[in-house]
Amino acid sequence: MSNVPRSSPYPLLQVEDAISIVLSEASSFQVIQVESKEAAGFIAAENIHARSPFPPFKASLKDGYAVKYPLTAGKKKLVGSVTTGRAGELPQVNSEQVAYITTGAPLPPGADSVIPVEWTCEADDPGYVMISKGTQVLGQEVRQIGSDIAEGELIISSGSYIGVTECALLINCGVERVKVYSRPKVAVFSTGNELVDIGSVPAFGEIYDANRPLLLAALRRLNIDVIDLGIVKDSEAHITKTFEKALEVADIVVTSGGVSMGCHDYIKIVLERLGKVHFGRVRMKPGKPLTFATTKTGSSSKRFVVGLPGNPVSCYVCFYLFVVPLIRKLSGYVNPHLPVVEAELLDSIRLDPERPEYHRSILKWNFERHIYEAKSTGDQSSSRLLSATKANALLILPSENKVLEKGSLVSAIVLEDK
Amino acid sequence: MSNVPRSSPYPLLQVEDAISIVLSEASSFQVIQVESKEAAGFIAAENIHARSPFPPFKASLKDGYAVKYPLTAGKKKLVGSVTTGRAGELPQVNSEQVAYITTGAPLPPGADSVIPVEWTCEADDPGYVMISKGTQVLGQEVRQIGSDIAEGELIISSGSYIGVTECALLINCGVERVKVYSRPKVAVFSTGNELVDIGSVPAFGEIYDANRPLLLAALRRLNIDVIDLGIVKDSEAHITKTFEKALEVADIVVTSGGVSMGCHDYIKIVLERLGKVHFGRVRMKPGKPLTFATTKTGSSSKRFVVGLPGNPVSCYVCFYLFVVPLIRKLSGYVNPHLPVVEAELLDSIRLDPERPEYHRSILKWNFERHIYEAKSTGDQSSSRLLSATKANALLILPSENKVLEKGSLVSAIVLEDK
Repeated sequence: MSNVPRSSPYPLLQVEDAISIVLSEASSFQVIQVESKEAAGFIAAENIHARSPFPPFKASLKDGYAVKYPLTAGKKKLVGSVTTGRAGELPQVNSEQVAYITTGAPLPPGADSVIPVEWTCEADDPGYVMISKGTQVLGQEVRQIGSDIAEGELIISSGSYIGVTECALLINCGVERVKVYSRPKVAVFSTGNELVDIGSVPAFGEIYDANRPLLLAALRRLNIDVIDLGIVKDSEAHITKTFEKALEVADIVVTSGGVSMGCHDYIKIVLERLGKVHFGRVRMKPGKPLTFATTKTGSSSKRFVVGLPGNPVSCYVCFYLFVVPLIRKLSGYVNPHLPVVEAELLDSIRLDPERPEYHRSILKWNFERHIYEAKSTGDQSSSRLLSATKANALLILPSENKVLEKGSLVSAIVLEDK
Repeated sequence: MSNVPRSSPYPLLQVEDAISIVLSEASSFQVIQVESKEAAGFIAAENIHARSPFPPFKASLKDGYAVKYPLTAGKKKLVGSVTTGRAGELPQVNSEQVAYITTGAPLPPGADSVIPVEWTCEADDPGYVMISKGTQVLGQEVRQIGSDIAEGELIISSGSYIGVTECALLINCGVERVKVYSRPKVAVFSTGNELVDIGSVPAFGEIYDANRPLLLAALRRLNIDVIDLGIVKDSEAHITKTFEKALEVADIVVTSGGVSMGCHDYIKIVLERLGKVHFGRVRMKPGKPLTFATTKTGSSSKRFVVGLPGNPVSCYVCFYLFVVPLIRKLSGYVNPHLPVVEAELLDSIRLDPERPEYHRSILKWNFERHIYEAKSTGDQSSSRLLSATKANALLILPSENKVLEKGSLVSAIVLEDK
């Protein structure tokens, strides 16, 4: 082992350039139709218009009495009652008459306004009711047809995120099914002769594979269908076979390990043969050996491979920086990036002179100072998962040969809330 | 219908007091054991210590050559190679000898330091390697046993959130299973004679039930097991029967509609009989008729009922303000509240003189001004779901008889990212 690799043939890309390459490759979306009630979390692939107006009939905003405007105070004849639900025969309401009505019920014919129950009291005769305050304006406490949403109104535009409220809005307006962008399927495997699954007893020289569980858990939290392809030994044949299998079933293949320069690092070698390696090194800390490739065989659609470094923290940082935007782009997000805010450092941090660092940190809003404060999670070794625990943000630290003083303002990528 | 309800017997509570009541009732947690790889999203119910140190052996941080410190530059004898994986017989490394080693592989006996591959080159004799730069410090490029995590070290304390990185950390340290707080099961039903499910054709006076799909989607996004009990007619008997069924299978029952003062509003009446109604009105906009009750029958644990108002926006706001913290408290969160930040108003907003308003808004970080800006979603009618679409925050607006000027700083509850 004297003639071993000593330098990488891959140019060292800037993070922004590397992310741009990933996103520019990811342009094809697949459109599917889902039921509106299952649409939360998807991106709309069409402009969606209200099929029915809301409300679909003149409805009372209050429990009270439906009347014809104008109506003065006094004892009024009760001609019936209208409650919510399938409206059978409704009472006719003429001047000086009232009909009891509940919130949301349709206005009976003749009525155009509602007197809230608080403005009324019981009369001595049960066929009557005492109105203590008459109508103030025509149409009071009445929701006009389509006043919330008109029939045909654009309610969700193509490219918008469908959250739980948008999902309810669709149903509200009678939209039963919608076209959305499908989410990519993701296959995951780890490479490394040293890896064993938790539950096994590691021999000397072996460690537990923590990356695959991390990636699978993170993908599931993004509601992504995952295919777990296990641990693959450091052999060109095994890795090739697993890639071939993965590329058949998944849109994106995410691997961990095997991207460095060691003589057992086969990911890049295999990918060069199976497809196009767009980059194999990125100027970032952690995550330098990050690798990105695409493949295209026969009539199948383009596939994406992200080869994450084997150190768990590098794996985690690169996942959020590259894999999440790739997934979001393929899922139809107009802005595939995670949210970024700014925060004031609670610690002084020595910058890395060569690579921008994605520093794990705990972000918290300070209500006295009206700003986010960022607390470092300490020692940032790329093997040290403790530095990623409790972290809810990645600070973007520039590469410079200096200490960034406590109190400096830095950009922070917001990860999940804890 | 003259002798109808005209005032509520329930006192009007402040929002903070109402939330406190809900949280103080929710004190019992159930502890379950889950596999570490399935633990993401749970709260730890025990202090968790590393079962094995990490790394579990002295490991190389680089691809390079394992050596015994000190080693000067020059041509050195190659005594073997160590790659990652089950370490069979390792070469013995003495002074002036080197063994090839890959990142993460265990140091062979005799070696204590690693010369990175970049400091070496091929020798003319394949049994040798040229070292261009000797050792600088003892232990260089070597990760000592337990240097990231010591055996027995506290890695996650009871009450902490287990995110995807914590899940990986557990596995990293050989922890196979952990005790966590179970998440409550939630049953959901809507009440209202006027409601039909999407897919049916509404008759005159009927509308689609949008609340149940909203609640079910929101609960699923929180990884909550849901039980969908459908639409229940406004009948005391039907509602009683559905509650009895729901309380048998779920920890929390969330209903929508039927909490106002109409003659068909049976939720409060039924709950008064089945358990204890803690409050039936809250000084908030929207959401005034919000109802909260607990029940306890036989040997079953305490159950919680949140009666949400029937207007979709009220339903949505009260869900995030009350149901989410209740779920989080029962799930073991030390801080059950959603994150709150501050934002500057981009619009002037007329305050409600009687009730604090939870104003739907779009929060966005302004990188030039280094603050969050909040854009109102417009007309805030409680039936108007359009006001909740695109919203990612609820502004907490105080009740006062004035206009809150554009540029004012307000607190904002952060909802899901869009």
